[in-house]
Amino acid sequence: MNLILLSPADIETDRLARVTDPRRLAHLRTVNRARAGERMTLGIEDGRMGQGELLTLADDEALFDIADLDQPPPPALPVHLVLALPRPRMLARTLEHVTALGVKQITLLHTRRVEKSYWQSPELTAEKIRHHLVLGLEQARDTRLPSVTLAKGFRPFVEDHLPGLAEGRRALMAHPGMPNACPRGLDTPTLLLVGPEGGFIPWEVERLLAAGCEGIHLGPRILRVETAVTALLARLF
Amino acid sequence: MNLILLSPADIETDRLARVTDPRRLAHLRTVNRARAGERMTLGIEDGRMGQGELLTLADDEALFDIADLDQPPPPALPVHLVLALPRPRMLARTLEHVTALGVKQITLLHTRRVEKSYWQSPELTAEKIRHHLVLGLEQARDTRLPSVTLAKGFRPFVEDHLPGLAEGRRALMAHPGMPNACPRGLDTPTLLLVGPEGGFIPWEVERLLAAGCEGIHLGPRILRVETAVTALLARLF
Repeated sequence: MNLILLSPADIETDRLARVTDPRRLAHLRTVNRARAGERMTLGIEDGRMGQGELLTLADDEALFDIADLDQPPPPALPVHLVLALPRPRMLARTLEHVTALGVKQITLLHTRRVEKSYWQSPELTAEKIRHHLVLGLEQARDTRLPSVTLAKGFRPFVEDHLPGLAEGRRALMAHPGMPNACPRGLDTPTLLLVGPEGGFIPWEVERLLAAGCEGIHLGPRILRVETAVTALLARLF
Repeated sequence: MNLILLSPADIETDRLARVTDPRRLAHLRTVNRARAGERMTLGIEDGRMGQGELLTLADDEALFDIADLDQPPPPALPVHLVLALPRPRMLARTLEHVTALGVKQITLLHTRRVEKSYWQSPELTAEKIRHHLVLGLEQARDTRLPSVTLAKGFRPFVEDHLPGLAEGRRALMAHPGMPNACPRGLDTPTLLLVGPEGGFIPWEVERLLAAGCEGIHLGPRILRVETAVTALLARLF
């Protein structure tokens, strides 16, 4: 944890926060090797961040002075990421990567090459998703939780949701073999669609192009989803 | 496997390759669901690639027609990557990511914040390293194996090896807080140094700057090594 992320339930007063969950307490002791009196980087979920003192660290709780948290979180990436649902372990890691990189809107999409069983994975419970988002924020020193939406049908997504998402955003579909290389250094609102392992099927590519998406590629190499998403975000922004 | 990588031991004649190891045979059957007569993407280690027919697939061997492999592998990235040795599981994944992205020279470096125990990990055996490099090549459809060198002392590396590596290359040290942002779209020979979780220590930063490295940063977010390396390579090249 490069930042101790405090949830609303942790906040006692505007000066004091109390952490009681075993994960963070164990991390404070064994990884941070924190001691009372130490100043640490703290952040309030969806709020400000900064340095605060660890007042006490006991077996069952840690108390922090949060009076001095006066900095905003780092800027977000101007992107809504639409990602074909990866297999569960890759989903977990990808959520952490993209949260750490600053993505704030994520839609997980069904496409033909997404195995239907993935939608039943325990990794898709709100609690598990939140866990990976929090790990990404703690890693990157950020406080603003991304929103994650599930789109379990490709056709309803394209017909009912994509037009709204693409409005005011440059819509990019990353797919091998598209004519244009991934652009660099954008700072305008962007919608980025990334297919599953094996890619979008040709019918899906046609539908997305017809809906106004620009096809872009990352070169001749075929990358795993988690590598491709990180590479796309790093090159685009 | 987006490409079946054939090692020298697999090549019987200039027309025929025989694969007998359980990993690739199992993958051909259960993931590729390959059948005799099918044309697949094949590549010869450090050599050419292309389409070839799966002639037979038995329990203990697969035979391929390799007469038509006439394409070169995709271009490599013009970079020598010097990476502080990550913890074993992250090393495995990072080797796969960077191999898939096209890195061909890798030095794994000891720095102050690298745990000494990492150097005893079974992941550092030549066989395990090769396994992860092969997975990266099979993923990306490439044939040229990266070379991996171990540099177990920081001071000897900086004094004895860095000057030679930096000669004819632009040497970049990625480290949070450096004044310059990571450059974009390079196509010239580059040496990229990336520290461990927790970063280089100030003395190491001073030594690397004194040796002629340019310090670069990826912004205010602190990224895990595997995310940072992928992001750096995607932005640089």
